[in-house]
This record gives sequence, C-alpha cells and structure tokens, in this order.
Amino acid sequence: MTTVKVNGYTCKDGTQVTPEDFYFQGLASPSAASNTSTGAIVTGATVEKLPGLNTLGLSMSRIDYAPNGLNPPHIHPRASEIIYVLEGQLYVGFVTTAGKLVAKHVNKGEVFVFPKGLLHFQKNIAKSAPASVIAAFDSQLPGTQSLVSSLFGALPEDILVKSFQFKPKQVKKIKSRYQPKK
Amino acid sequence: MTTVKVNGYTCKDGTQVTPEDFYFQGLASPSAASNTSTGAIVTGATVEKLPGLNTLGLSMSRIDYAPNGLNPPHIHPRASEIIYVLEGQLYVGFVTTAGKLVAKHVNKGEVFVFPKGLLHFQKNIAKSAPASVIAAFDSQLPGTQSLVSSLFGALPEDILVKSFQFKPKQVKKIKSRYQPKK
Amino acid sequence: MTTVKVNGYTCKDGTQVTPEDFYFQGLASPSAASNTSTGAIVTGATVEKLPGLNTLGLSMSRIDYAPNGLNPPHIHPRASEIIYVLEGQLYVGFVTTAGKLVAKHVNKGEVFVFPKGLLHFQKNIAKSAPASVIAAFDSQLPGTQSLVSSLFGALPEDILVKSFQFKPKQVKKIKSRYQPKK
Amino acid sequence: MTTVKVNGYTCKDGTQVTPEDFYFQGLASPSAASNTSTGAIVTGATVEKLPGLNTLGLSMSRIDYAPNGLNPPHIHPRASEIIYVLEGQLYVGFVTTAGKLVAKHVNKGEVFVFPKGLLHFQKNIAKSAPASVIAAFDSQLPGTQSLVSSLFGALPEDILVKSFQFKPKQVKKIKSRYQPKK
Amino acid sequence: MTTVKVNGYTCKDGTQVTPEDFYFQGLASPSAASNTSTGAIVTGATVEKLPGLNTLGLSMSRIDYAPNGLNPPHIHPRASEIIYVLEGQLYVGFVTTAGKLVAKHVNKGEVFVFPKGLLHFQKNIAKSAPASVIAAFDSQLPGTQSLVSSLFGALPEDILVKSFQFKPKQVKKIKSRYQPKK
Amino acid sequence: MTTVKVNGYTCKDGTQVTPEDFYFQGLASPSAASNTSTGAIVTGATVEKLPGLNTLGLSMSRIDYAPNGLNPPHIHPRASEIIYVLEGQLYVGFVTTAGKLVAKHVNKGEVFVFPKGLLHFQKNIAKSAPASVIAAFDSQLPGTQSLVSSLFGALPEDILVKSFQFKPKQVKKIKSRYQPKK
Repeated sequence: MTTVKVNGYTCKDGTQVTPEDFYFQGLASPSAASNTSTGAIVTGATVEKLPGLNTLGLSMSRIDYAPNGLNPPHIHPRASEIIYVLEGQLYVGFVTTAGKLVAKHVNKGEVFVFPKGLLHFQKNIAKSAPASVIAAFDSQLPGTQSLVSSLFGALPEDILVKSFQFKPKQVKKIKSRYQPKK
Repeated sequence: MTTVKVNGYTCKDGTQVTPEDFYFQGLASPSAASNTSTGAIVTGATVEKLPGLNTLGLSMSRIDYAPNGLNPPHIHPRASEIIYVLEGQLYVGFVTTAGKLVAKHVNKGEVFVFPKGLLHFQKNIAKSAPASVIAAFDSQLPGTQSLVSSLFGALPEDILVKSFQFKPKQVKKIKSRYQPKK
Repeated sequence: MTTVKVNGYTCKDGTQVTPEDFYFQGLASPSAASNTSTGAIVTGATVEKLPGLNTLGLSMSRIDYAPNGLNPPHIHPRASEIIYVLEGQLYVGFVTTAGKLVAKHVNKGEVFVFPKGLLHFQKNIAKSAPASVIAAFDSQLPGTQSLVSSLFGALPEDILVKSFQFKPKQVKKIKSRYQPKK
Repeated sequence: MTTVKVNGYTCKDGTQVTPEDFYFQGLASPSAASNTSTGAIVTGATVEKLPGLNTLGLSMSRIDYAPNGLNPPHIHPRASEIIYVLEGQLYVGFVTTAGKLVAKHVNKGEVFVFPKGLLHFQKNIAKSAPASVIAAFDSQLPGTQSLVSSLFGALPEDILVKSFQFKPKQVKKIKSRYQPKK
Repeated sequence: MTTVKVNGYTCKDGTQVTPEDFYFQGLASPSAASNTSTGAIVTGATVEKLPGLNTLGLSMSRIDYAPNGLNPPHIHPRASEIIYVLEGQLYVGFVTTAGKLVAKHVNKGEVFVFPKGLLHFQKNIAKSAPASVIAAFDSQLPGTQSLVSSLFGALPEDILVKSFQFKPKQVKKIKSRYQPKK
Repeated sequence: MTTVKVNGYTCKDGTQVTPEDFYFQGLASPSAASNTSTGAIVTGATVEKLPGLNTLGLSMSRIDYAPNGLNPPHIHPRASEIIYVLEGQLYVGFVTTAGKLVAKHVNKGEVFVFPKGLLHFQKNIAKSAPASVIAAFDSQLPGTQSLVSSLFGALPEDILVKSFQFKPKQVKKIKSRYQPKK
C-alpha cells in the first residue's frame, strides 16, 4: 500500500486509522517553566505530534508559567488562538493593528482570544504560584515567531539601531544574548 | 458611527474593541450535568457569547459529565473538534466514513481529536466521579446535531421504521420521548 | 516525466490531460436498488472515478430507489448536496441543528438542497415505480456516513443503550444485524 | 426579528427556515431553446432563486438545446461545472490554459467536467432532436461570461481589429449584431 | 533529508530556505514586445520561477507593450489582477458578467483592477512610445487563457461558425493563422 | 435600490460598477518619506480607497524611502507580500519561525517575497538617493502591525522589562517616545 502524503504529512485511509493517530498525552503534565529565560514554556500538540490533525484545521498547546513567568510577545502567522486558564492568574493581551493594547487579567477557568497574526503575550501575575493554560489554534501547525529573539537574534545591527533608535553599543549588548540561527 | 455586520455579527474597528469582546468567564465552573437526560451538558464559548471571535475561525466549549454521564452521538457540521480532559476518565470516539469505530480511554490532561462532520461521543467511565473537558473547534459557530434526538425527535415514523427496521409500535414509543421542533 | 500528486491524486499538466479524464459514463443506467437492505443505491462520480475532478471542488452521484426505497439518514462530512429528480416521486428532508425537520415531496425535475454536515434522507413514495435522482456536491470526495449502520454497527452496546434509552437486549438484537468494521 | 444578510442574501436562523427555501421547480420543464440566437437556453437554480443555497457553496442549472443548438463558448468566473446529460447527444469541451481542446461526444446519462474559469461549450449534434443537461457548480452564484457577446458586444472596435486581425469593416459588421450594455 | 512537495512544488523547512528562494530578477528589464503578434509580452514571476511563493497565494508579472501594442483579451482562471503602470499610457478594461465594458485610460503610476475570471485587455495608446506594467495576482500560478487563440486555435470550425455567425470560409481563414495544440 | 454590503464594504451589481471603482491614482507620486521618523512612508491602495477590490482578495501599496530610510520591522496579519523595486537599492528581509534571517540586497526591477504573518523590513541602502517599491498583497485589507511601536507604544512596562531584559529606566525612556493609543 502506498503512503499518501498531503501537506507533507501522511494521510491515512479511513479504514487504516488508529485511535492513537488522534490521541496525545504530552499535555498532561506541566513542563519545567522555571528553566526558561522568561519563565514560560510551550508544549505543542500540532500535526507534528498528533498525526490525525492533518487536514483538520486545528491544534492545541499547553503553556506553563513559573511564578512571574512571561510568554513574551510573539505572533502565530497562521492561526488565531483561544486560551483557557487551567490554573493561576494571568495578565494577557494583544495589540491591534491600530496600535491599541487589548489586555485583561484572567483567572482559572476563564477564556481569552488572540486574533490571527497579532502580537500577544501572557504573564503569570502570581509571585509564588505557577500557572498554566490550554491554547487552541485554527491551524494544524500555527507556527510561532518570538518577537524579541527574532528582532535581536536575527536582524542586523543597523536595522535595530534605526528601528529602536538605540545606540549601536546598546544593540550590540542586547544581541550578544542571542545566538543567530544559520 | 455605523455598525458594520459581518456574518450577521458586529465587526468592530480595531480602535473600538475592548478586552471584554475577547473574554468569557462562562466556562469556569461546571454546569449541572446530572439534570440532563444522559448526564452531560455543553457550555459554549462561540461567537454568540464571545463577540471577538467573529471572523477568527475558532471557538471553545466546556463539557461536564455526571458519573457515568454520556455526551451522546452527535455531529458538528462546520468544525473538527479537539478535546483536553480537565478532570476524570472518559471513553471517547468517532466513527469513520468507512464505518470503523476509532475510540479510546482518555484521562486527565490527555487530548483527542474528532474530525469534521463525523459522528462522535464522550462517556464518563467513572461510576461516582464527575468529569469535564475543554473542547476547541475550527469554526466560530460549529453547530451541533444531536443524532438521537434528530432521528427520533424529528424524522417521520415511516422513515425511522424503515431505517432502523424497528416495528412501528417501537418507533412510536421512542418518539413519544421527544418533542418535535416546529 | 514525474507524476505530480495533489491531495493524493494525480495532477496532470494542462498539455497532458485527455477528455477521458473529465468524463464518466457510470451514472447512465440505474443500479439495482432492490438488492439493498432499504431499497436505495448510490453510484458515485467522485475524484476516485473521475480523475479530472481533482482540485476542482465538486462531484456528482446518481441514486436509484426501488419502489418504497429509502436512502436512510446519513451525513456528508465535507459537502452540501443538491438533487435533481430524474424520475419518480420522493419525500426528502434534512434536520437542522435546531432539531427541526425541513422536508418536502419532490417530483420529476424538481430540485432540493441538503446543507453541509446535516442529517438527511430521501424516500421513494411510489409503491410500485422506481425513482432516481442526480446529486451534486461541493467537494471532489464528499464522504458519506450512514447513521444507522454507524450507530448500530460501530458504537459499543453501552453507548447505544444510554443514547437511545433502549434495553441492552434490544440493542444486542439490532447490533446483530451489522458486521462491525475492523 | 432582524433580518440577517450574508453575501447580500437573507440568512435565516435554523428555526425559521422552510422547505420552500431549499426547493425549486423551475428546472422541471424544457425552456424554448429554439427562440435563442444559437439554439440553447440556460435556466439557473442559483441563490437568486433558491435562497437556501446561501453560504452552501453550490448551485445548479438546466440547459436546453434545440436541434443543432449550441451553448456558445463561455466562462464561469467563480465555479467549475459538471454536467449530466438528461437527453440527447452532445459534443462538449473546454480549452486548457495550454491552448489544448479537451472535447468529447457525450450521450444520455453521461457526465463531463469543465474546470473553473476555462472557456467551454456544448453543442447538440442531433439534427432533429432536442437535448438537455443538468449542470452543477461549486458556487452559489457562478456567474457567466458569454465570450462572443462580451468580445463583440462590449470591446471597442480597435481592440477587436487588433486582437482578431480582422478588418475594421468586418468588426463593425459583427458588432452591429450586438447591443452594448451601458 | 526527504523533499516535501506541496501542490507539486518543493516545500522547504524554515531552517533550509535561502534568500534566493524568495527573489527574482527576471522582471527588471523590458522583454521584446515588438516581436510578438500583437505587440505585448508577459514575463511571469510565478511559483514556477520563484519557488518561495509556494502556498503563499500571490505572484507577479511584468507586461511590456510595443507602441500600439495590445495584450489581447484573456482570462486568468485562478486569480484577480491589479496592475501598476511603470511607463506609458494604456487603455485597459474588463467586461462584467452583465456584458458591460469597464475601461479607462491609465497613465504612469496609476492602478487598475481586473476581477477574477473576467475577460480583460490592456492596450498601449502611444503611437511611438513603449509601455510597461507590473501586475500582481492572488494566486501563486494564476494561469492565462488567451481568448482569441483559444477560440480560433482550439475550437472546431462548426462551433466557431455557429458562435460567431461567420461563414465557414472566414473561419477556415482565421483558423489557418493558429497552430492547434495536440 | 438597496446598497448591498459585503465585509462591511459596498458590493455593487455588475450593471452598476464604474471604471473609477477599479482605479486609483494615489500611488503615482512619491510621498514625503523624509518627514517620517525612520524615513519611509507607505501609501495604500486597499479596499478602503479602491472599492472595486471588495471580495477580490488582493491589494497594493507604494512605499517611498528617504536616503537611508527604513520601513521598520512589521507584520501583515492577513497577507503575504511581494515587492517590485521601482527605484533604488534596498536591503530587505524577513525572519522565519525558525528564527533565521532571510535577507538580500535588491535593486531596481527586482522582486522579493515576504511570507504571511512574518516579521519583515526594507531599508534604502543609498546614502543620498531615494528609493521606492510597489508591494502587492493577497488580501484586500492586509493590515499592518508595526512592531517597534506596538511593543514600546502599547505594551506595559513590566512586560517590556522582562521580554527585553532591559532596565525599567531604559524602558521608560523608550516608551516616552510613543503616544499610547486609547
């Protein structure tokens, strides 16, 4: 039997699928957010780990936050996002194309929406308690562009100097924290 | 200022939106599943309650299950669904167009996917503990067609007799449990 | 020359296509509806038989009905359907997500529409004459989920007992008519 | 109750729809093809006449052909088309973007496909018998651009002279048969 | 590493892409429009030459016109088009499905739009100066159907005679200018 | 006659459209880039100014750059972009979701592509000459989110401090350059 690929992923016949194709247990436990630079870690349940999502148009992830942890400003180029707070108290928001901040405190069990392609963030506002959310996306592979590391890890110094109106020395210093991808 | 409507729902300018447009707290607490006929109740966070979802292509709901509660076989005509188990132990599944059952036991923190337009169900397998899941959809208004009540509450007797090869008396008896919608 | 596959089906260059790729004669004659369990048989002209449909977003089928024949309640997960009555008198309908039956008698030459993902049926109301329709779909492979066999052929006994509020014995008896797909 | 409009057409709530919204009888009888300039007439069952088609993504029409009648070269800008021959013998075809004619004789009960946005035609090849087809489209309002009348009824003389390398006098003569739309 | 193909074109991982995948210099200089039959030549920057366009939903071309040159009536089956005049003075237009000509003189730096799937043309109205435009499309491979050559190069004589109400001798003469594609 | 609105914009009947609906002259001349903070200015030809674009899925803009001018890092949430260099020499690029810079020098007449939803920029590398590009988008209203002003004009101080690992004093100073939108 030939393997059919659609979108670069296997597409099984309806008689060949198994329950495991549509199942994922990797979101059950918190990941160690405290090891990350800003205290937040994302665990994805996208088509790469959950093959049954192929062609279905949605996916999930779990985000864990250390106390005061921040999922720093980022963008999903291919999806809107809706979060459900599993635990904790967060301050979350996005910025509209009109440059307006749309942000709110959300607590356990509450829901917030981040429209497609807009800069957004979530921050655990508890000083000693962790937090976690379940996020859903309208894409099987939403993609994530972390803005701070994309800006300072990837852009050339002169672009950053002019964009941020920082001094070259400042930019050099910030850039030194990031390893550019080659 | 004129109100713009898209898809029949208000579409605000990026300068007019408020955080409340993108926020919903109605999924925070369990609803009383034990009052329902099969012991399961769905609370939606669709565009009808969360106006910021308009044009974004996704939504959420919370499903609560009494002990042994069943979210009986149903279909979402406009969306695939992905669930995350908040609490409890469920047996969940769908049927492919090839007539194959794809089902599994899922526990707290696990994820399962139901492809668009296919018959599916979830059952709390605990005899005394409640269960709950968060479900996400790739539509701002997925719609739900409950199959048992659509069949026996809506279809004429002769169609049911022939479809199920039941006796007319049996069908009459089953139909008596449902109030047809006019 | 390499064969290009899109959606798992061959996608020919515009210089290589032949008229036969866009042609199908399998809907010209009635199929033997009287051999089927409910007296109706569907013959498809989808991308599987009509390769030129690949990427075009539509397909057709012919449905033949024995006298009193029923195309029992089913759902197409990926398409709406529009039928044209070739011959005979039918009673046809669908159930909305609001649980309302939308049904009508349709005669030769008349047209009826079944919205995407909703339960629908067609029944030949003539006691001695056959009937037939041409159905068109807005998908090259709409898929069909027969509800009665999906429910009773595929779902576990306890789900059916609870869903239909039937006795286990009744469910066992009904299930015995179906061979589960493995 | 406010009327919701989507795509400029009424969008009813699932509790308000009637069977008549999804029903059309205007394709049941042949229209008088012999009164038309080339012996073919199209009767549409699009969203304009069948309001239930709104948002569903498909529509139908019936085409009747006088003996030797021709549905002259035209294009549907928003849909592919699939035809089923109700009666008669036709020669039908389309031209690919590679300039290749893909054409075939089709008889009663046979099916042929015209890909979206490509020039196509159908001709009744019987000298004394009428013909008719049912056509389905993957758009609720496919639109039709008749090429001969668009070219000679709408385009300025100098464009036609240069395009066809005809003499101005010839173009004037041909144009005189068409009334430009204002 | 396996090559992933999507839509028949290579789809590289985000770590493997190069700037050259997203770059094209073939539109920088005019092509020799005066060698063509109507004095206009199209140079495409579609996915075939600019591989980074794959899955992105847009493409470009440059059109050069000799003095009096005409880009004769044609249709893009998969895209709308927007042009920006680089140089010169053009008369451009399209025909609506209502048969109405929508046309205008456009000069250097002006923009005009041709809706998807509609017959359109552009003509350099300068008698001695060349002209050029940049055209953008909402498809990575819009396709082009030249109407005059599709009609007279591809369609059979009898279809043309009846469509245009020309004499067979006239049609033969016109057809002799075109080489049919096989 | 009632005005039909689709997407919040007027949708005219094919008999009512005028050439002006599909025409725009606002991109013909350079805008004064030197008055802007980073030396670049964008002039849009979206559905807001070119009403004929409604429902067509594409739009254009012109970008003018002062010597050394920079169109600073930004994102279009609803569109990919393809640029054609009208004049000058630019250094342009985007960052992939893998954090890799994809950038190149482009000269007059060359084309470069920025995939949907990814951070990108263009910089005039000439010290004394202006530059300009024509950009096309696969959306009638692509939207633009300027990253520097969204970050420092809209986000709260503590989010910025933690995201950039700047000192609060530094963030305050940078923020003082932007007027938050309310």
